[in-house]
Amino acid sequence: MKTVGIVGANGYTGSELIRLLAFHPNVSLRFLYSRSYSGTKISDLYPDLTTVCEKVLTDQPEDVDILFLCLPHKESRNWLTRNAVKDETLVIDLGNDFRLDGKFGNRNFIYGLPEINKKQLPGAKSIANPGCFATAIQLALLPLAEKEWLNEVYTTGITGSTGAGQSLQATTHFTWRNDNISAYKTLSHQHVDEILQQLVSFNHQEISLNFVPWRGDFARGIFTSSTIKTDIEFSDMYQLYRDFYADAPFVKISETAIDLKQVVNTNRCVIQIEKCGNVTVIHSAIDNLLKGASGQAVQNMNIAMGWEENLGLNLKPIAF
Amino acid sequence: MKTVGIVGANGYTGSELIRLLAFHPNVSLRFLYSRSYSGTKISDLYPDLTTVCEKVLTDQPEDVDILFLCLPHKESRNWLTRNAVKDETLVIDLGNDFRLDGKFGNRNFIYGLPEINKKQLPGAKSIANPGCFATAIQLALLPLAEKEWLNEVYTTGITGSTGAGQSLQATTHFTWRNDNISAYKTLSHQHVDEILQQLVSFNHQEISLNFVPWRGDFARGIFTSSTIKTDIEFSDMYQLYRDFYADAPFVKISETAIDLKQVVNTNRCVIQIEKCGNVTVIHSAIDNLLKGASGQAVQNMNIAMGWEENLGLNLKPIAF
Amino acid sequence: MKTVGIVGANGYTGSELIRLLAFHPNVSLRFLYSRSYSGTKISDLYPDLTTVCEKVLTDQPEDVDILFLCLPHKESRNWLTRNAVKDETLVIDLGNDFRLDGKFGNRNFIYGLPEINKKQLPGAKSIANPGCFATAIQLALLPLAEKEWLNEVYTTGITGSTGAGQSLQATTHFTWRNDNISAYKTLSHQHVDEILQQLVSFNHQEISLNFVPWRGDFARGIFTSSTIKTDIEFSDMYQLYRDFYADAPFVKISETAIDLKQVVNTNRCVIQIEKCGNVTVIHSAIDNLLKGASGQAVQNMNIAMGWEENLGLNLKPIAF
Amino acid sequence: MKTVGIVGANGYTGSELIRLLAFHPNVSLRFLYSRSYSGTKISDLYPDLTTVCEKVLTDQPEDVDILFLCLPHKESRNWLTRNAVKDETLVIDLGNDFRLDGKFGNRNFIYGLPEINKKQLPGAKSIANPGCFATAIQLALLPLAEKEWLNEVYTTGITGSTGAGQSLQATTHFTWRNDNISAYKTLSHQHVDEILQQLVSFNHQEISLNFVPWRGDFARGIFTSSTIKTDIEFSDMYQLYRDFYADAPFVKISETAIDLKQVVNTNRCVIQIEKCGNVTVIHSAIDNLLKGASGQAVQNMNIAMGWEENLGLNLKPIAF
Repeated sequence: MKTVGIVGANGYTGSELIRLLAFHPNVSLRFLYSRSYSGTKISDLYPDLTTVCEKVLTDQPEDVDILFLCLPHKESRNWLTRNAVKDETLVIDLGNDFRLDGKFGNRNFIYGLPEINKKQLPGAKSIANPGCFATAIQLALLPLAEKEWLNEVYTTGITGSTGAGQSLQATTHFTWRNDNISAYKTLSHQHVDEILQQLVSFNHQEISLNFVPWRGDFARGIFTSSTIKTDIEFSDMYQLYRDFYADAPFVKISETAIDLKQVVNTNRCVIQIEKCGNVTVIHSAIDNLLKGASGQAVQNMNIAMGWEENLGLNLKPIAF
Repeated sequence: MKTVGIVGANGYTGSELIRLLAFHPNVSLRFLYSRSYSGTKISDLYPDLTTVCEKVLTDQPEDVDILFLCLPHKESRNWLTRNAVKDETLVIDLGNDFRLDGKFGNRNFIYGLPEINKKQLPGAKSIANPGCFATAIQLALLPLAEKEWLNEVYTTGITGSTGAGQSLQATTHFTWRNDNISAYKTLSHQHVDEILQQLVSFNHQEISLNFVPWRGDFARGIFTSSTIKTDIEFSDMYQLYRDFYADAPFVKISETAIDLKQVVNTNRCVIQIEKCGNVTVIHSAIDNLLKGASGQAVQNMNIAMGWEENLGLNLKPIAF
Repeated sequence: MKTVGIVGANGYTGSELIRLLAFHPNVSLRFLYSRSYSGTKISDLYPDLTTVCEKVLTDQPEDVDILFLCLPHKESRNWLTRNAVKDETLVIDLGNDFRLDGKFGNRNFIYGLPEINKKQLPGAKSIANPGCFATAIQLALLPLAEKEWLNEVYTTGITGSTGAGQSLQATTHFTWRNDNISAYKTLSHQHVDEILQQLVSFNHQEISLNFVPWRGDFARGIFTSSTIKTDIEFSDMYQLYRDFYADAPFVKISETAIDLKQVVNTNRCVIQIEKCGNVTVIHSAIDNLLKGASGQAVQNMNIAMGWEENLGLNLKPIAF
Repeated sequence: MKTVGIVGANGYTGSELIRLLAFHPNVSLRFLYSRSYSGTKISDLYPDLTTVCEKVLTDQPEDVDILFLCLPHKESRNWLTRNAVKDETLVIDLGNDFRLDGKFGNRNFIYGLPEINKKQLPGAKSIANPGCFATAIQLALLPLAEKEWLNEVYTTGITGSTGAGQSLQATTHFTWRNDNISAYKTLSHQHVDEILQQLVSFNHQEISLNFVPWRGDFARGIFTSSTIKTDIEFSDMYQLYRDFYADAPFVKISETAIDLKQVVNTNRCVIQIEKCGNVTVIHSAIDNLLKGASGQAVQNMNIAMGWEENLGLNLKPIAF
């Protein structure tokens, strides 16, 4: 059994990690770190965790084999600066601190999208877990980037309220958000740089990604549609995607219409391609807290530790 | 045209009053009072009001013919103490300050449930607007109280998130409330006293009202079911209700199943009676912001001013 | 008082027309036509209409001044063929039968988007009411088309379940649709031709409209985002939109973020423009049953009859 | 590995069983029976099952160790009459055919509420799985029945749309059900007899259960509140519940407020007791498809087979 610590365990992605790791056969939770909730039982914050995890949040980290950082963006770097972490500890950061620039002291964070970096991950000690929209959009576009076929991309994506975290805001108030749709960070979402850095490394030429994010009136999930111009035949494109993801246990290329609830409460990504004339649309869907955050973090841990990629990730879909 | 002022115009019931009064043929809005948002345009807080009402919130009240108080509970009394209001001004309080005890200086607030007090309201200068649950439950039980048939009542009611106001709370966070149901203030809701004071004045004997309120995963509306034991025949009870509400334009006794969306965005209350053996259940549904608050306040104003009861209240139901 | 008949009164758009016309000061409902529900009271199908409209559906049309056709697509033509309608009767078709080709016998249907054709509508006897997505997308793009600035457009739009009508389908089942998002008719929605026919008549050169429609998990409303490349300054574009819609009482150009619920239960369209580099995104939102169908039909009637454009359309927004 | 067959695998409870059993360590799915969908892949009906279960539905049952019947009420008896099932096969019926009268040929169905019958279940060959409301309400009342303290009970319960199955009905149409609440089968729900048969066997005197079921605007879950009169002290009652469920791994007595989402996508039941004067309210919540159907069926299977009670049932809660 490897020991695990979770920093920022009181948030959505932190608590979701607990839900996953509580039943993971190869790890045991040693500490749950939270400065603001130190002394509180995690199951008092999240009653669904009662009997599943009865640990008390602490502000005293301990030595562990695996450390997950579930902090607000820009705080992972601070935390690692202030707290000593042994070199042999596997650190997986769910924030965006090390996605664009992975250097931190002796550590060099690998971008933890297993569908790209599965070969570099085994034995890794530092992993930068991708963003939620970044995961959904990259998985939709990667096969095209690898062929250097990307040029102009027009993407709309919609995200659940959990994407905004647990802080109380006007746009997460139930009265406002119920039955409502709105755009935010139009053409300026922070994940665009992260997406382009990865895609361009394959595509070898510039990509213009015009991304319009929407807020949805549901709690979990991301659905995206990306439109491009291309002369590639549909059947070739479909085969390209099947081949590209042949070894990816959590990515499924669908021949039929996809919908968001096919993936909610799973670590999966479903992708569908549609073509009309010389225009192609690629749809993708993930659970933003799982494949878009905590599930992918466990997937990265599994690969880094040399365990089966889907260990602890055979989750029952919500389905309905 | 009579002049109107709204105190607490920045809240849900205040802004809902604006939506109603902006198109009311007999009144014009003179001032919208808000201490915390003084200087802000109301349409900046509620963009649906753009072009409908472009007034700026103020902390300087003026003389008006009709004054609505839309303040948090217990603040109406304070406000009236600190601000001079002419005796001839009609004051309608949407809070609970004057529902149980209507005395305030020279004023004597009448309980503004028109289905009870329609005769006392014309010419009234002080009206205490009933609470939302109080309206839905009283309308469901009044005909029985008038016959002195009430004894033990078991009521469950569910309310939309607007009932909790616009403040950000854990239980109004979209992520928490979406798809969720919970109980609150079990057997101790503040409306019980208000309901009993009215019902007992008809029933002439004590009533035990066991009320379990639930939070619902929708924004608008209240649905209640009240269970009693009785030997009265169904047909007699049905006729009793029809007769009792014969002159009430906003109350409808339904022969068929009712549902909440029949009344959302209207000032109506629908009631259905079901009987099995010696047990009777009375269901009622209202829009908590309209018949449960601002709509009823306008209805009270209309009656007090001698206008048609439904003036400005022929609202298009949301229906879907 | 002008007399009105509604054909297909049992559907969503038909019943929504009843909700609007029941309180319209200049018309009275003479007949509600439905073949399948002939003999049924409309308020038995839609209990929210109880006391508002107690008419019985009939399969015997009568002579009226104004006739609304609320039939499934392709059935308006059939109905007019089988049923005699006097030349002086104003016919407003809410289907898509006359939008692309307005000729039918002596009649020549005018495309009823008042923001384009307000001058042709007064006195008109035949009006083809635009589609819901067609309304939202055209209003977002018209000012650019008029300047001949449109070339490539990438649009994503999301629609409520009422857009799919009242028939029971897998994709309108609550269990499936709740919390779900999905794409449909990708790049092949039937409204694209309708949109392009109008826009190109202004733009004078071909437009490529790549439209990805989504199904949303709400009942009412349409939200769209359209992305284009342009070198026009933001301030010029904003002014262009303000000028273009200066005389359009139901279109509002917003300086701040828009959201769907600003327009639900109203006949309004709100539009917001955002720009980043040489890329512009235009968002628009409408209530698909009102500005996208029955509300716009009443607006067209008002203009055609020489009445005030907003008569009967000062609707209280749902807001929450 | 024991072999399993599921009859009625195409429905909600059948497919939910597949989601559970696909990852259960001790069983393998041998056949999925469906007359109407024979020849169809289950993952074509439920795309979330792609790669999880790729079996084709069949109308040819085979010999299995464990057989689940997920048929509409009253059809299990028919199916067992028409299809030979070996005596040594464990049959678990999720319908209501054998709940009140467990006799069928040589078989004698045990009522499969493990919190009552855990001692009778090991080695059992015939188990009648309880109804969803029946599970939630019994678990809320059993400790009181065992003390013979039940007399008059007033219960309101709300259920998700999955409780109504996958058939398309007016009341499962998204447009109708979204944001809507309604009552159905008032005082006459089919689960009342089932509940009373069990409770009275403990209580030894008649119980009057006045049950008002509501339809909720969510897909999964049941929340109930039961009100009784009692002089028992709160602390005694709380302790009674803790003791009664001390050995029940899936029942949790909460000291703090419960809500529905604490149990969605789990096999758990959470219960909270509140008291005011001599009135007590017991709240309970379950996932109707899991503890209320398929999850409990797996729990029954585990106990009957002598396996750990929670095998395959350590499910990640949806939580958000």
